[in-house]
Amino acid sequence: MEELENGSIANPDENRMVGHYWLRTPTLAPSKELTDTIQKTLDQLKQISRQVHDGSLQSPSGPFTDLLVVGIGGSALGPQFVGKALGHPQKDKLKVHFFDNTDPDGIDLTLAAIGSSLKSTLVLVISKSGGTPETRNGMLEAENAFSNSGLNFAKHAIAITGEGSKLHKYSQENEWLEFLPMWDWVGGRTSETAAVGLLPAALQGINIDDLLTGASEMDQLTRNSDYRKNPAAMLALAWHHLTDGKGSKDMVILPYKDRLELFAKYLQQLIMESLGKEKDLDGNTVHQGISVYGNKGSTDQHAYVQQLREGVPNFFATFIEVLKHRNGDSIKVDENGMDSGDYLHGFFLGTRDALYEKDRKSITLTILEVTPYTVGGLIALFERAVGLYASLVGINAYHQPGVEAGKKAATAILTVRESVINFLRQNTGTGYTTKEIASEINNLDKTDWVFKILENLAINQPEHVRREKAESPTEDRFSAI
Amino acid sequence: MEELENGSIANPDENRMVGHYWLRTPTLAPSKELTDTIQKTLDQLKQISRQVHDGSLQSPSGPFTDLLVVGIGGSALGPQFVGKALGHPQKDKLKVHFFDNTDPDGIDLTLAAIGSSLKSTLVLVISKSGGTPETRNGMLEAENAFSNSGLNFAKHAIAITGEGSKLHKYSQENEWLEFLPMWDWVGGRTSETAAVGLLPAALQGINIDDLLTGASEMDQLTRNSDYRKNPAAMLALAWHHLTDGKGSKDMVILPYKDRLELFAKYLQQLIMESLGKEKDLDGNTVHQGISVYGNKGSTDQHAYVQQLREGVPNFFATFIEVLKHRNGDSIKVDENGMDSGDYLHGFFLGTRDALYEKDRKSITLTILEVTPYTVGGLIALFERAVGLYASLVGINAYHQPGVEAGKKAATAILTVRESVINFLRQNTGTGYTTKEIASEINNLDKTDWVFKILENLAINQPEHVRREKAESPTEDRFSAI
Repeated sequence: MEELENGSIANPDENRMVGHYWLRTPTLAPSKELTDTIQKTLDQLKQISRQVHDGSLQSPSGPFTDLLVVGIGGSALGPQFVGKALGHPQKDKLKVHFFDNTDPDGIDLTLAAIGSSLKSTLVLVISKSGGTPETRNGMLEAENAFSNSGLNFAKHAIAITGEGSKLHKYSQENEWLEFLPMWDWVGGRTSETAAVGLLPAALQGINIDDLLTGASEMDQLTRNSDYRKNPAAMLALAWHHLTDGKGSKDMVILPYKDRLELFAKYLQQLIMESLGKEKDLDGNTVHQGISVYGNKGSTDQHAYVQQLREGVPNFFATFIEVLKHRNGDSIKVDENGMDSGDYLHGFFLGTRDALYEKDRKSITLTILEVTPYTVGGLIALFERAVGLYASLVGINAYHQPGVEAGKKAATAILTVRESVINFLRQNTGTGYTTKEIASEINNLDKTDWVFKILENLAINQPEHVRREKAESPTEDRFSAI
Repeated sequence: MEELENGSIANPDENRMVGHYWLRTPTLAPSKELTDTIQKTLDQLKQISRQVHDGSLQSPSGPFTDLLVVGIGGSALGPQFVGKALGHPQKDKLKVHFFDNTDPDGIDLTLAAIGSSLKSTLVLVISKSGGTPETRNGMLEAENAFSNSGLNFAKHAIAITGEGSKLHKYSQENEWLEFLPMWDWVGGRTSETAAVGLLPAALQGINIDDLLTGASEMDQLTRNSDYRKNPAAMLALAWHHLTDGKGSKDMVILPYKDRLELFAKYLQQLIMESLGKEKDLDGNTVHQGISVYGNKGSTDQHAYVQQLREGVPNFFATFIEVLKHRNGDSIKVDENGMDSGDYLHGFFLGTRDALYEKDRKSITLTILEVTPYTVGGLIALFERAVGLYASLVGINAYHQPGVEAGKKAATAILTVRESVINFLRQNTGTGYTTKEIASEINNLDKTDWVFKILENLAINQPEHVRREKAESPTEDRFSAI
């Protein structure tokens, strides 16, 4: 960890440094140049945020009221978690929306939620590589929506991406409002304390200085080489102990606080993408990882504590206790003078005990309150624990080779889709079975893809592709109209 | 299944019939009386919904604009899933909010989201037993919020609960607007097609007749005793095959459609609470169950497909493919003429292939579009698959004995809390360590509870309880002020 923080190549496959710790203590970065870049970007994003709030940066129709974040994975999960944990429906400075997928209907629903506020919506397009297709599609859909409403997208758009990336160039050519850099030494899943996480948070009105302080102080605590005084080391060791060092049990995350509802989803990425690896650093096949799921207590007690207590013993629980119940006074809800928060606390302790009774293990983390400071601390704690656990089991926590396979297959499928469309067009009016088409385009080994594509085309382009039903789907005939 | 549908005692531990199938085909109910009750309740809830929409049932301040559902578990997950799957931010007839926990801060956030619309908010309080503490607390918090705004809660409130329950009586004594019955032969997790699910959906503006038709037709399809033609039987057999009939693998639910994002959460309850059982019907210890998690594709590819493809092989995937991309035309997003939906489809097929390549198994369900009809069908399909799977492994799918343990422990903890408060009050001004207090109230074996309670009291009632820090938490002294 010390070497990693000093700038060694901690991600050997990609020959990269791993520097998310420098983001909250820039003086730690291995060169003055890096320190300055981090500080400059932080100053820049704070300035943007101030200007948006004071109206000196505004849309052609007036001050910004809404924020649309276009991003997926590490570029959405952090802002979603932090925005929900620290936001407030009435006090937020901008109302935040997301395009976090390439689902056209989902995009339409988000646009409907924005409604007539589109004219005063600021758009952040976030993609580290600048080439993420879902984000590119989301950006083009957003651009189209603005243009359909007679609005100039460039006057609403800010890019956060790697310097020189496709997205960077596109933002320059189209004269977007601003550009903020992402660096190859920050992974998407550890980018909450980079511009990716900080700009949306700052724009929403969240105190990012406190968030950075919380993360920085947790980093300091988790540098302790005495593992008993290092909470991240204790956490990593507990994971190792509870999962036999090979992910033999799932991690169920149960925060007893509505604000933390998305933490499990955030950790799902941080932990599963970091630890879910086929090979260890020596190249041995190990199939590592820990599965993570959960929502919030006591709600989840009514969903699946039945199974946790009595069913397959294939998990350990991680409870997150939040001491403070609410701001302001509470009414009494029973004859013994208890309030709603006392019940929540009772359910947390009661569930923990009910699991313990049945030899289901758990870890408890306690925080005073959900604030930018504690959220920064939680993020840094789990980031470090993941890094330490990866060292314990000897894997690279900072790459994600398995993600590429799905992307490559998707690209191959889109190529087959194009061939199918071209073949049908060249033979307009004639009906073919799936197998005939697969054979004609030399994809007989991908007949399943061809069928799925034809089925999909007939539904989505009924004006171009016709499906004649037969006895069985394999006999159905497809033709271009 | 045939016996169950005919009214046999399919839930032997609780000596109850299991009748959620009758809800969508009331003529199937085992007596004319039951058929009439189901039909009458359905007519009643449709009438309420019509009256709310046409303004003949309105708040003292005018037509209802918002709906607050107070419920947890089966009384929230269904309405949340269906509301998100079939709702629309601009077209919904009422804007829907939830109190689905007893977190005071979460309640305050929901109230802040409702804001000044509280005066035109209709409240559904849903608890089958009528005694769920989280729901009781939520109701009292809502009542208090209305009263603080000078509003008469009773003129806004409808109860859905068992006839004669505490909640039913409370609603009668306080002259609430309406009451709708829940029956002991409908489980919370299978109550989406009872008033619990249908009234919120109808109020939101969702076509519940289509939802019921979809469920009813799926029920019909899944009555086929030829398992190859029975999709629920095929699903249950696949689960059995993939998890060795003992939950050896997790079920990862990946719908490629934003609208279905909450389906995994809904299924988490339906499947885990139904199948997660310690004993089989013969009383043998079996620790059954299947763990369920997931959100949506392609978003989740960026979160954890890395682990699914390369990491611990402890799961099987369930893809849900939705054929129709969107209503209306799409722009092209690349030089090959593809649109956002073509990409979504490519990612689904690509991920499925990438998993298959690594011998990670999956099931695919394909639906035309997310409509009330298909959502009703999906719900009925999984309800039946769960029932059939339970038969395969010989367990009772319709009780939840493990949930009681946590509730009992919570009650015990609240009693200890009361004792701690009483002891401190009787000894105002004097400081005691945790152990001293535990000893004084005869709970030495629950010293951990006593500490957690004292820590919590000092934070939430600083005007009543003082904590003096010492060298270590066990030495800290607590006193009443």
